[in-house]
Amino acid sequence: MKKQLMTFLLCGSLFATAQQPVDYVNPFIGTSNYGTTNPGAVCPQGMMSVVPFNVMGSEKNRFDKDSQWWSTPYSADNKFFTGFAHGSLSGVGCPELGGLLLMPTTGELNVDYKAYGSEYKDEVAHPGYYSNTLTKYNIKAEATASMRTGLSRFTFPKGKSHILLNLGEGLTNETGATVRIVNDTEIEGSKLLGTFCYNPQAVFPVYFVMKVNKAPKKMGYWKKQREMKGVEAEWDIYSGKYKLYTSYTREMSGDDVGVWFDYDTDEGEAIEVKMGISYVSIENARLNMNTEQPGFDFDKVRTAASTMWNKDLSKVQVEGGTKDEKTIFYTGMYHLLIHPNILQDVNGEYPMMESLKVGHTTGNRYTVFSLWDTYRNVSTLMTLLYPERQLDIIRTMLDMYRENGWLPKWELYGRETFTMEGDPSIPYIVDAWMRGLRDFDEQTAYEAMRKGATTPGEFNLLRPDANDYFSKGYVPLREQYDNSVSHALEYYIADWNLANFAQALGKKEDAKLFRDRSLGYKHYYSKEFGTLRPILPDGTFYAPFDPKQGENFEPSPGFHEGNAWNYTFYVPHDIKGLAKLMGGDKKFVDHLQKVFDDGNYDPANEPDIAYPYLFSYFKGEAWRTQKLVRQLLKDCYHNAPNGVPGNEDTGTMSAWAIFSMMGFYPACPGDVNYVLTSPTFDKVTIQLDKKFYPKGELVIESKHSNPEAIYIKDVFAGDKKLKGYTISQEELVNAGTLRYILEDTHK
Amino acid sequence: MKKQLMTFLLCGSLFATAQQPVDYVNPFIGTSNYGTTNPGAVCPQGMMSVVPFNVMGSEKNRFDKDSQWWSTPYSADNKFFTGFAHGSLSGVGCPELGGLLLMPTTGELNVDYKAYGSEYKDEVAHPGYYSNTLTKYNIKAEATASMRTGLSRFTFPKGKSHILLNLGEGLTNETGATVRIVNDTEIEGSKLLGTFCYNPQAVFPVYFVMKVNKAPKKMGYWKKQREMKGVEAEWDIYSGKYKLYTSYTREMSGDDVGVWFDYDTDEGEAIEVKMGISYVSIENARLNMNTEQPGFDFDKVRTAASTMWNKDLSKVQVEGGTKDEKTIFYTGMYHLLIHPNILQDVNGEYPMMESLKVGHTTGNRYTVFSLWDTYRNVSTLMTLLYPERQLDIIRTMLDMYRENGWLPKWELYGRETFTMEGDPSIPYIVDAWMRGLRDFDEQTAYEAMRKGATTPGEFNLLRPDANDYFSKGYVPLREQYDNSVSHALEYYIADWNLANFAQALGKKEDAKLFRDRSLGYKHYYSKEFGTLRPILPDGTFYAPFDPKQGENFEPSPGFHEGNAWNYTFYVPHDIKGLAKLMGGDKKFVDHLQKVFDDGNYDPANEPDIAYPYLFSYFKGEAWRTQKLVRQLLKDCYHNAPNGVPGNEDTGTMSAWAIFSMMGFYPACPGDVNYVLTSPTFDKVTIQLDKKFYPKGELVIESKHSNPEAIYIKDVFAGDKKLKGYTISQEELVNAGTLRYILEDTHK
Repeated sequence: MKKQLMTFLLCGSLFATAQQPVDYVNPFIGTSNYGTTNPGAVCPQGMMSVVPFNVMGSEKNRFDKDSQWWSTPYSADNKFFTGFAHGSLSGVGCPELGGLLLMPTTGELNVDYKAYGSEYKDEVAHPGYYSNTLTKYNIKAEATASMRTGLSRFTFPKGKSHILLNLGEGLTNETGATVRIVNDTEIEGSKLLGTFCYNPQAVFPVYFVMKVNKAPKKMGYWKKQREMKGVEAEWDIYSGKYKLYTSYTREMSGDDVGVWFDYDTDEGEAIEVKMGISYVSIENARLNMNTEQPGFDFDKVRTAASTMWNKDLSKVQVEGGTKDEKTIFYTGMYHLLIHPNILQDVNGEYPMMESLKVGHTTGNRYTVFSLWDTYRNVSTLMTLLYPERQLDIIRTMLDMYRENGWLPKWELYGRETFTMEGDPSIPYIVDAWMRGLRDFDEQTAYEAMRKGATTPGEFNLLRPDANDYFSKGYVPLREQYDNSVSHALEYYIADWNLANFAQALGKKEDAKLFRDRSLGYKHYYSKEFGTLRPILPDGTFYAPFDPKQGENFEPSPGFHEGNAWNYTFYVPHDIKGLAKLMGGDKKFVDHLQKVFDDGNYDPANEPDIAYPYLFSYFKGEAWRTQKLVRQLLKDCYHNAPNGVPGNEDTGTMSAWAIFSMMGFYPACPGDVNYVLTSPTFDKVTIQLDKKFYPKGELVIESKHSNPEAIYIKDVFAGDKKLKGYTISQEELVNAGTLRYILEDTHK
Repeated sequence: MKKQLMTFLLCGSLFATAQQPVDYVNPFIGTSNYGTTNPGAVCPQGMMSVVPFNVMGSEKNRFDKDSQWWSTPYSADNKFFTGFAHGSLSGVGCPELGGLLLMPTTGELNVDYKAYGSEYKDEVAHPGYYSNTLTKYNIKAEATASMRTGLSRFTFPKGKSHILLNLGEGLTNETGATVRIVNDTEIEGSKLLGTFCYNPQAVFPVYFVMKVNKAPKKMGYWKKQREMKGVEAEWDIYSGKYKLYTSYTREMSGDDVGVWFDYDTDEGEAIEVKMGISYVSIENARLNMNTEQPGFDFDKVRTAASTMWNKDLSKVQVEGGTKDEKTIFYTGMYHLLIHPNILQDVNGEYPMMESLKVGHTTGNRYTVFSLWDTYRNVSTLMTLLYPERQLDIIRTMLDMYRENGWLPKWELYGRETFTMEGDPSIPYIVDAWMRGLRDFDEQTAYEAMRKGATTPGEFNLLRPDANDYFSKGYVPLREQYDNSVSHALEYYIADWNLANFAQALGKKEDAKLFRDRSLGYKHYYSKEFGTLRPILPDGTFYAPFDPKQGENFEPSPGFHEGNAWNYTFYVPHDIKGLAKLMGGDKKFVDHLQKVFDDGNYDPANEPDIAYPYLFSYFKGEAWRTQKLVRQLLKDCYHNAPNGVPGNEDTGTMSAWAIFSMMGFYPACPGDVNYVLTSPTFDKVTIQLDKKFYPKGELVIESKHSNPEAIYIKDVFAGDKKLKGYTISQEELVNAGTLRYILEDTHK
């Protein structure tokens, strides 16, 4: 009787577990096809990630970090594991972090990663957990993480075993580390990181403390020795090789250093290794480690991470849809919540912007701001689903301004990397403010935004070509590949947001100035080509001009990572104005449709990702949005490693899918109206934060007779039938229920 | 009237200054001809030296540290200055230390030493002071030192000026450093040193704090970047080059890193840079700096160093002799007192032997023990002239035993480098004890010595071939170049000393055992060749045998850095026994004379340096000693860079000259009798330390009718005419006056 009951409970428990959002996440999505995500163990917005590193050291790998532009520590296409990286970026386009490589081996000690790396099998990844089996050694390698610490568990066969910490290699292009043996179970040190997107000055250190749960038989350092030449090399047997230091325990510094631990292990013996990191100091790394992991308890840390994820993912419950669709959705949510990640230690200390001096916060201080990407849709999604977190993100941006005098553009661990262009903090913040998230210092925010929007170019860190922009209303092409049109397009959307913000704050003159500027895009419109077109300093159009030049990331005059088609419609704040330039609504729609028909739409990069939603601004054309979005979701998002169309861009690709699958999309940053499309799921239940959205719950229901019913017939917000194909933020969060009536043919 | 008086005083002052021993020192002696001394600023037994580094970076140099075996930071034959090294070795045969290179430059900032190095002119060197003028920049560079700190003064022309600290290069073969900007006038860090004589495990860190007396306009780091290959290199403009870090101030670690300071200087503006070092910690380096140099006062530091030197050198006053002879003598004294140098910081902390854990001493803890060299004569000279210092040296050796379980062989900054062979601490210490210097723990000393003399080879760090030695009485040749005979000869002299020590302590059985062993050299005597000859493991002599093989440091079976002739007479404890083997006294003398006549005597290496004194053991042959010593002094010691016959060997070459010029020499370590020879000077006054030698003063007078009167007619110790050509330690230190009556023909 008792036994039966237990079985029942167990089954019930298993069944319940299978229902949880966290179980739908497939961390391998995005790990191929340049998605640049990874299956490592990480917590939501966690500083620490423990990531299988498999992009160096073997010709068996399809991709090698050093043989091409490569920006992820892990590729599903590779085979050769060289350790767990501690602290990595997910979904970015430049190589950085991915160091502190922890590797278990057996047999004779070898510290050369080309020799000690191993193939692997039986990969498993869940939010907060990763494992594989190293086939060369028959070692099971597992990893989990708390917010600021990692924990690895290596289950060894019987015999000589080793644990290696490699401080020389990593995804980062920076080198140089120092490490010190504290005692026979603990080491500490620092490693330089940075040079993100080859910005040579954007460097910063990571500090770490690492502890093993079993004292080794022996331990020591290694360092790759300088290669000596001629007669000198004859006396040094280690010239150009890795030297093992067996009796030295003070600081070891160098370009390529590491620490080895020797063990005699029993069959199946597990050794655990925990690591705390900090971007402030070794002391803080130790405090983080001892606070978040006072002992060694792998299962506890793993469960805690999984629980955190499930709580965050459960803000949205989806029903209906296939298992793959649910997996794509929740994995998108998972990717959304990796960056920005917290930067402050458990004591609130963090490295301040550009000085790296120690600041202190009582909230969360965030880092990794890929704003050129995230202002387009991530900002809106965070405002809707995680408003408290979004406020700390915005407060962080304002603190960066206070510390460094400028809002961030692409911030990385306290460094402005100046990656991509524009003034993206403006639309990021204004979008949240417009949607009602206002619990931050809006005066400072305005002051900071205005500084970027008014400071002359020679003193303007965010808008180096501000002088041209201010005086001409556009940025002329002064160098062949200066991305001038792309720069200006970013300034227009930023200034449109700033104009609205100024207006709302009662600053009428500013509002007019910035609104006028925001319409300067018209200078670029070429009637001849029907596209935007670079303008030379003398005011004439750039020629010869090919609006298709720039496909596949080839360089293109005036345009960054794209061609004229990818950018022409990126004036989301004045779509009607652009339509007028093009000769009317029909011409606009024809032009836009042609972009898709001719293969000029790039779903993998940000400038054009809202294009499918632009049709809905035109009467009778919204079906195109609904059709295209469904098609793009099907074509570009999969429950597979290649399931993200390109660089995930810290949640931007996923946010596109998340919104699209829920049935609405913020097609213009700073415009509180969403464009509607037909939801993928039968029912989506969003738990809104009542502190910000008193209604509390938003249920999205979708009535459709068959899977082909993808066209919107009617949408009801509560009891009110919507006119048109947009819904405002206010309507949405107060609707309670949003009901879509779908049909299989469009009107 | 007043003016006249001042002039008079000034002249008087100058005159008085010219009389001081310190003024006779020429620090350029030994800086060519592989003497391996240097003209840098250093205090007696000082931890710090500030040495012009000129052995890298230019083809204009005759010698390059990387193009051959090279063991000195400075060569008089070179021209290209790349900075002041902080902490260098003087007079050793292996490359080590010589890092923390401080360089002034002007013009555009360049951190590549091949580009920033400069030729120089107007070199000046006095004890505790060095200066030159860098012709490329017209900068006057000056250096001085206290015991643990250096101070440089750079006088710049008007314009852009720079101060560089290069942590990547140095004489050491180890690499790796870390440095941190503390504030705009102070930096701190550490650099790994070691691998002396290519012992890969003998590594240790030096910690430093450096302060400039003027805040720079800008400052930052540099690091030589890893060389990238292929496509990766295209994105990194610094691949394989020096990168300047302009906005990063946390730790910088790497193989090749440095710090730059930018200034705008006025014409003739002097900037001073002080540096404290420690082998314990950065905190101690700062404490050393702030204690020994609270401010910046170049002249005060320089004067203090000069005063210290003059006090030490004044222990011996010489009269008569040429200026060159006085210069050679006092420069020899100067070289004698550079190593061993103190290791403890101002708070008494030092790195303990082999663990580098922090120890504490109330006396002086010494380091740099080149004992295979110094036990032969330096020990005796230190006992005679600086007994208090010698006691701390011996106490240090016993502490090393307490810390590490073994007496030192060739200790370097807390590391046993295992350079050369034998058990040299035994004769070093026993010689002092036998001469009456006994204020150390003689029981521990005996225990330590006995351990080396009785522990089986597999556990014996000092005598790895102890098993053969114990069982056979000699060490057979087991590998072609195993230096087996040299090893055994060292064991014999050590065991003879230990036998005497045991006897004195009442340990009769031990005394017999070690005395018997000390005579095992007889196994090696080959009647066929009249030399010692290697023995094969089967007991037969090694063949084919060439007793001359081993000249000029070519490898020689059985012998280390020499041939059979250089070693055959090295049984100073049983000269009469060797003579008997050779067929009597006459045969011995003929054999020994033939060594000189055939050019088989090497004045530049230790095994045979006492040979000239051995004649005096034989009746009627002492004139040969007197003639040869005079000739060797003339041929091998000069007031010129080539003025030391070979590696100075931390005072050993100089001690030979000092003793020889004073008229007596300790021909057998541990034998309290000196062999007499004719003094170079008319009068030598030695201020003996009354605490140890109550008589206090020893005056050596030399009566001779003409310069050719180099042969001893009679010697009087006080009123007592000596019989023969030796004098015991006791007779010497109590003589009050030692009078030599010389004549120009020998008896």
